[in-house]
Order: sequence, then structure tokens, then C-alpha cells
Amino acid sequence: MSNHFFINKGPFKISKILRILNLENNSIDQNQIVTDVKDLFNASNTDITFFHSKKYKEIASKTKASHCITTQNLKNELPIHCTPLIVENVLVSISLVTSKFYPDSINDEIDLTCKNIDETNFDNTVKFGQNVLVGENVSIGKNCSIGHNTIIEKNVVIGNNCSIGSNTIIKNTLIKDNVKILDNCVIGKHGFGFFPNKNINSRYPHVGAVIIEDNCEIGCGSTIDRGSMSNTVIGQNTFLDNQIHIAHNVRIGKNSIIAGQVGIAGSSIIGENVRIGGQAGISGHLKIGNNVEIGGGSGVIKDVPDNSKVMGYPAKNFREFLKDNK
Amino acid sequence: MSNHFFINKGPFKISKILRILNLENNSIDQNQIVTDVKDLFNASNTDITFFHSKKYKEIASKTKASHCITTQNLKNELPIHCTPLIVENVLVSISLVTSKFYPDSINDEIDLTCKNIDETNFDNTVKFGQNVLVGENVSIGKNCSIGHNTIIEKNVVIGNNCSIGSNTIIKNTLIKDNVKILDNCVIGKHGFGFFPNKNINSRYPHVGAVIIEDNCEIGCGSTIDRGSMSNTVIGQNTFLDNQIHIAHNVRIGKNSIIAGQVGIAGSSIIGENVRIGGQAGISGHLKIGNNVEIGGGSGVIKDVPDNSKVMGYPAKNFREFLKDNK
Amino acid sequence: MSNHFFINKGPFKISKILRILNLENNSIDQNQIVTDVKDLFNASNTDITFFHSKKYKEIASKTKASHCITTQNLKNELPIHCTPLIVENVLVSISLVTSKFYPDSINDEIDLTCKNIDETNFDNTVKFGQNVLVGENVSIGKNCSIGHNTIIEKNVVIGNNCSIGSNTIIKNTLIKDNVKILDNCVIGKHGFGFFPNKNINSRYPHVGAVIIEDNCEIGCGSTIDRGSMSNTVIGQNTFLDNQIHIAHNVRIGKNSIIAGQVGIAGSSIIGENVRIGGQAGISGHLKIGNNVEIGGGSGVIKDVPDNSKVMGYPAKNFREFLKDNK
Repeated sequence: MSNHFFINKGPFKISKILRILNLENNSIDQNQIVTDVKDLFNASNTDITFFHSKKYKEIASKTKASHCITTQNLKNELPIHCTPLIVENVLVSISLVTSKFYPDSINDEIDLTCKNIDETNFDNTVKFGQNVLVGENVSIGKNCSIGHNTIIEKNVVIGNNCSIGSNTIIKNTLIKDNVKILDNCVIGKHGFGFFPNKNINSRYPHVGAVIIEDNCEIGCGSTIDRGSMSNTVIGQNTFLDNQIHIAHNVRIGKNSIIAGQVGIAGSSIIGENVRIGGQAGISGHLKIGNNVEIGGGSGVIKDVPDNSKVMGYPAKNFREFLKDNK
Repeated sequence: MSNHFFINKGPFKISKILRILNLENNSIDQNQIVTDVKDLFNASNTDITFFHSKKYKEIASKTKASHCITTQNLKNELPIHCTPLIVENVLVSISLVTSKFYPDSINDEIDLTCKNIDETNFDNTVKFGQNVLVGENVSIGKNCSIGHNTIIEKNVVIGNNCSIGSNTIIKNTLIKDNVKILDNCVIGKHGFGFFPNKNINSRYPHVGAVIIEDNCEIGCGSTIDRGSMSNTVIGQNTFLDNQIHIAHNVRIGKNSIIAGQVGIAGSSIIGENVRIGGQAGISGHLKIGNNVEIGGGSGVIKDVPDNSKVMGYPAKNFREFLKDNK
Repeated sequence: MSNHFFINKGPFKISKILRILNLENNSIDQNQIVTDVKDLFNASNTDITFFHSKKYKEIASKTKASHCITTQNLKNELPIHCTPLIVENVLVSISLVTSKFYPDSINDEIDLTCKNIDETNFDNTVKFGQNVLVGENVSIGKNCSIGHNTIIEKNVVIGNNCSIGSNTIIKNTLIKDNVKILDNCVIGKHGFGFFPNKNINSRYPHVGAVIIEDNCEIGCGSTIDRGSMSNTVIGQNTFLDNQIHIAHNVRIGKNSIIAGQVGIAGSSIIGENVRIGGQAGISGHLKIGNNVEIGGGSGVIKDVPDNSKVMGYPAKNFREFLKDNK
């Protein structure tokens, strides 16, 4: 979070935040200033954070944040310098606070700053096709090319030696060097995160970016959503085939190879040197280790340790899968 | 069916229809007029309908249609006022008749009425990107936005407070209020329905529309096909993630949540408040009840009753799935 | 291979090729001329070929090629007139040689020869939408239409009575007569083939084309990759639904029907009159016979004989699947 894509409307007094959360807490100094909203790990001592699951107990105990939205049950895990703000639903509450700091991160409006690349300074430095649109404050390195009808929205950063295909849309994304993004992709839209309500669901802010490290390739028709509180990251030299969906907050390690039509659900962490066969699916909030091999068509619904090979639905050890299916 | 997207070339004398079907039936008054072709439920007393499966026995017994294409076995289920036209293959025959009434519903020609939105009256009322194309007789409500390179074909209706992404194509679709359709979607093309033939398949007419009710969101890269004889409907406040495929005639109830890369085959009916995990597939002609939860990656091949939770391929009760896969 | 899409930079003396492969072989006449690189079957007596697996023993024994990149173990299968060039990794070596003959087949550069169709001779002969781009040396038959924002890259051949949708990209492809390609497709990009390396993967040349035979339909959002050494072929009167991925070198026979979101991995051969249900996946290098039926959601990981019906993951005989899942 806290990238240059979304403007921080803070700082705010803690009194304002307490009002948003409908909290009264007289033991808190109402004039304290809160600068930003960040996750437990990245928060500094003027930031507010959140803590909603025992899973994050250890990071919580070391957070530098001055305030933390949490529950009665979890509050004692926090360090003394961090004031707990006790709420019923941590995720709804942090969403309200994040929306206050970053109101532009909820809906993806059309980028009306886009103009035809031949009316910009890239006219001389980039090789480009017809009808290419580029937003305000975009940065594009040396020796790059951009295909026809592609849209690079405001603030996107593209490194050197990159090639972007045709009919592709890129927003809220940092692309390092030597990256190829092929045709018909959508990179950097908000994730599929919201609170279901009768009549009208309420959308969750997504202040994360997409980061694509050096030497990656992203196949045609793929979608990579940006993170909610953290970034979605594609590690160095990782190659994605066509029609892949990478949900918000996913992090994929370096040197991984992901075949066509794979889907990775929100917040899963994939290690380095991982190979995933076509059409495999990985549930959300999982940890897939390094050097893992996942067979095509597998449905992975629990963590996979380093150096293992799994297959099936639900995915299990490869030998076991073969034995069960002799 | 019978929406404003396809022009009814009727009425026709029944004698003309008998000739198309290669039928001789002297007991029928050859001068009777047939106004339209509709399904059993929607047909009025000047319409022709069709009845091809015992499954629809009850609706057939109450149809108001004056004529019904059916088989020898089924004809006795029809009410007295409805004249049966006995054929060998009901679906082929109704396809021939529908093609006579609605010749434009077979192939999706390019909409040559499209022009750049800045040459239309929407110039002042809609917020729009570059290269947006709009066809004849399109209606767009208040406070809407349309992204770059998007195509809204003729007769499409968009309600108030809607946001349409970039690179999206919309045809034969009615969109209610407060709907978001994201980038790279194709909404409203004809379904994957045809009669396989050696050498050259024969396409089925699709006279249905797509209807997207209030407060829906449709994710990037999704496709929603229009119906053949009835409409494809996305119920109110239902959210679809990226890369989802909804086939012709599918109806999804309100307040449902469908995760990435799900596919729903033709004519299946999904209840209200249904949750479908990523990459799940639902076969055609099924009925999924209300408040159903379908696990990610599941393959659903039979009906699912209300309030149940299923998972696996083939999908079964969730507890059973867990037990079988311990 | 050896189509008109990639320019052959040969012929080369065999001495040059030996140098690329880092081979010294004094028993070979260093001045011999090599005209082209082809597969075992298609090579003529001035071509170089490759032979990397016992599976191809029979074709290897009949090859007409003058030189063949192969291994110590396999070299004795070759006919006397064919000089073996012994290497450690046949595929890496043939990739190096192919890159020498066809350097443009590795990366898909933007086609800067594209211009708006209304500046071309097709202005009068083709029905087209707005912003259609056409590259150099494209051929389009009679009675064709091309939708808005579609890109037809250089050298593409389109037959008579074809209809191409909107937002579609076509390159390195031969389209026969009466073909429909719907919206948002990408046809003819290079396959997902490369040699994984730490730090930076090395891309494999793809000198094959995509060939789409008469009377086919390709659904919205589908991707068909061109072949590496041979072509990717969609047989006559075969219909593909939406969001299908066909990888490089796949060949599909005539009169087949493939439902939505199916994926077929590289080099698999699908017979005639095959029906594949939605979301099914077929692993690479398989042979699926004629008249085969594959149930929706299946994961096919071994060959399927003619006239059989399979389902499940891994796919097995349909009756067995039903019995196991009662």
C-alpha cells in the first residue's frame, strides 16, 4: 500500500476516525494525528493498522502502529505503544477508515487524462501502434513498444526494454525491466473484494498496486487485480500463459511457470520456481512453497510445502494421486 | 423473447409456416394468421409455440398459443384451443420458424450504425473515454460513464448511474440502474446453439436478450450470451468476478456472488443468494436453489436443492466431500 | 512450418550451423548448403531436421533431410543419406538453428505496417467497422466483414464469406472460407514455449501458423497460439465456444464441437467429430481419437481411443465414472 497511485487525503485526527467507526473512547487523546493506514508490518508510529486473525499474532506483537483496529479477543497481542480500537467487524471497520484516507481506491473511474500517445512526449521515445492512449504522469523507459489500441492509465510506470501488446489495459501498475505483456490483458483493476449486503453490496477500497518484476511474460487475455492493502506481485522471470486470473494481494515468487487458464484466488502466496499446470486453481489465503509442482487441472485447497508435487482435486501428493487413480 | 432487438417479419399465414415445416395438414384453416413465435408460457392466442419435452407438460397444458410444434407423443398434453403441428425434430422445426420471423437473430452482423459518441447526443450527458462507439437508438441514463474503445451496439438500454469499462462490447442487452461492467467484456452475443451437420453446422436463431438488473457488477473479460427463445438474466445485486462465462438462457437470482473463471452452461437456473467459488462449472439445464454454496473448482452435474453446500466433481454434499477426501 | 509469415534468412553453409551448435565434425563436408529447417516428415534433401524421441522412430527412418540434430542413442534410426549432428539437448539445439533461419519468429513485434482499412484497397471490397487496422500483404476474400477495432496483421489470409468480430487480433493465420471469428479473440501469437533459465528464460522460435479450415466458428475471448515447428490447425466445420484456449501445435479434426472455457495444451491431436464439454482440459502431446465424447470439467491426461466417452479427473470411461460416483 501507500504507492503513488492513490492520493492520501490524511492526515486525520484520531477523533475523526473514532467518529467514522462510531466509537467513543475517552481514554484516547482525541488530538493525536494519524498519517496513514497500513498493514501490521508496514505501519509506522503515526499510522493506524488492523489485526483480525490469530494467524497474524506474531507480526501484530511487533507492529509499530500507534493505533490498531481489532477485537476484544485479540487486543492483548498488541504491543503497549499501540492503542487498540475495539470493533465488531475488523474488516468492515478498516474498510471505512481506508475509504476515508483513499476515496479514489474504491471505484475505478475512466482515466480521462488519457490522450493519444502521438500527442505526448513518448512520440519520439517509444515504438507504438495506432490508437495508443496514455494517461498523465506515466513513465516509460528506453526501448519499449506498445501495441495498437492499448491503454496505459495515469501514473503507471514501465521500465526499459518492455513490450506491451495490443488491446491491453494497464492501471495502478509498476512494471520493471524487460517485461512482455501480451494482448487483451487487464492489469491493475480493483480486486473482487466487497462486503455482501442485501440490495446493494458495499465495495472494499483497493489501495495496493500490481508490481511486475524484471523479465516476466504475461499471456493474452490475462487479468491481474491490484491488492487491497498490500500489492499483487509477479516475481522476476516468472512466465504466465494465456487467460490466467491472478486475484488481489497474490504474490508469486521468481522463476515460476504458470500454464493457461490457471486461477489464483486472493491473498495466496506462491513460492519461487513453482510450476503450475493448465487450468489448475488455487484457493485464497494459501501458502505454496518453493520448487512446488502442481499438476494441470488440480484444485489446491490447502498449503503446499516446499519441494513437493501435488495433483488432483483436492490436490494431494502426486504419488498418492496416481495410486488412487490406477 | 420478443424484445426490441430483433425485428419481427411476421405476421404470416399458417399455410406459409406449414410449407416451411414441409407439413400438409388439411384439417387446419390455411388462412389463420400467426403473429409471433414464443415459448409455452409467453405465447398469446395468435402465437405459435413449441413443446419438446415432458418436463414442460404442465406449462404446455396451460399455453394460450394457437399452434404448437410438437411430437405425436406429446400432443395430447396440449389444451384443445392449441393446434398441434406434428414434426420429427421439434427444435429443428421451431428454429426454422423462428428464423422466418427473426432472420436477423441468427448471425451477429457488425453494427454499421455505430458512430463515435462525440458525434451523438450523448456528448453532453455521458462521461466517456476515447474512441467510444454507439449504435442507433441506444438509450443511456443519467450519471453514466463509458471507458475507452467500448462499443455499445444499436438498441442497447443502459439505466442510471452505470459505469461501463474500456474495450467492452455490449449488444442486445438491457442494463438497469447502478450497474458496473468492467473492461474487455462481451455481453449479448448469440449463444453457442446450433444443429451439428456434416460439412456445415446450421445456426440456431437467438431472439432473447441479456438483462442485467440493478446494482450488478460484471468482472473483466467476462462473456454473457443472450438467450435463444428466452432471456439471459443476471439478478439484482449479483456480482461476477473476472473471466466468467454465462451461456444463453441462464438466469441467476439476486444477491449472488460468483468468483473468477466460473462457467455456467446453457439454460441453467441459479437461485438467490448463491455463492460459487472460482473455476466451478455448472452443466446445462440444471436448477440450483436459493442460498446454495458451491465450492471452488466444483463440477455440478445435477440439481442442487435450496440451502445446501456442495463441492467436488461431480459435486456432492460438502461434508461428504470432506469425508471422502480426508 | 515454412509458411509465408516468417522470412527464411538461409540458406547457410553447414559449417555455420556447426558453429552455432558448438560442434566440430571434420567428417562433414563443411561447404554443404542447408536451405531450411523442417520437421522429420516435411524436410527435403537440402534441409536440416531434428529427432529427439523414440516416439518418432518410424518417421525418422524415412526422413529425406540431409542433416538431423539428434542424440547418440537415436542416431542409428536415421537413414544413411541423413548425417546426424549429435548434441546433448536436441530441443535447445534446434531452437538455436531455427532462430538463425527465422529470427523474427521469436518475439511478436507490433506490426507497424498496419493502417486504417479505409486507407487500403479493401475500402470497397470488405464490410468493416470503425478503427479496423490491416497490415501489409493481407488477403481478404469476397463477402467478408470485419468488426470495430479489429487488427489483421501482415500476411494474414482470409477466405470468402468470413466474418471477423470486434476487438479481435489476428496474426500469422490462414483462414479458409465461411469462417466466423467472434469478438475479443487473439489468433496466431507465439506459443508458451521457452527454455526455463535462472534469471531469464530463453524463448523458443515459433515458425508455425494457425490454419482455420472452412466453416469454423471461434467464440469470443478465445486464444489460438501458432505452432512452433508445425501448424496449429482447426479442422473444417469445427465450432469453438467462448474463452477457449488452444495451445501451439494442436490439431483438431473436422466436425468437432468444443464448449466454453476448454483448454487444450500444446501438441495434442484431437480427432474428427469430437465433442468436448465446458471447462474440460486436455494435457499436452495426447492423441484423442475420432468420435470421442469428453464430459464437461474433465481432465484428460492420457490418450483416448476412437469412439469412446470419457469423464472425470483424471478422465476415465464414462460408465466407470458414473459407477465410481454413485
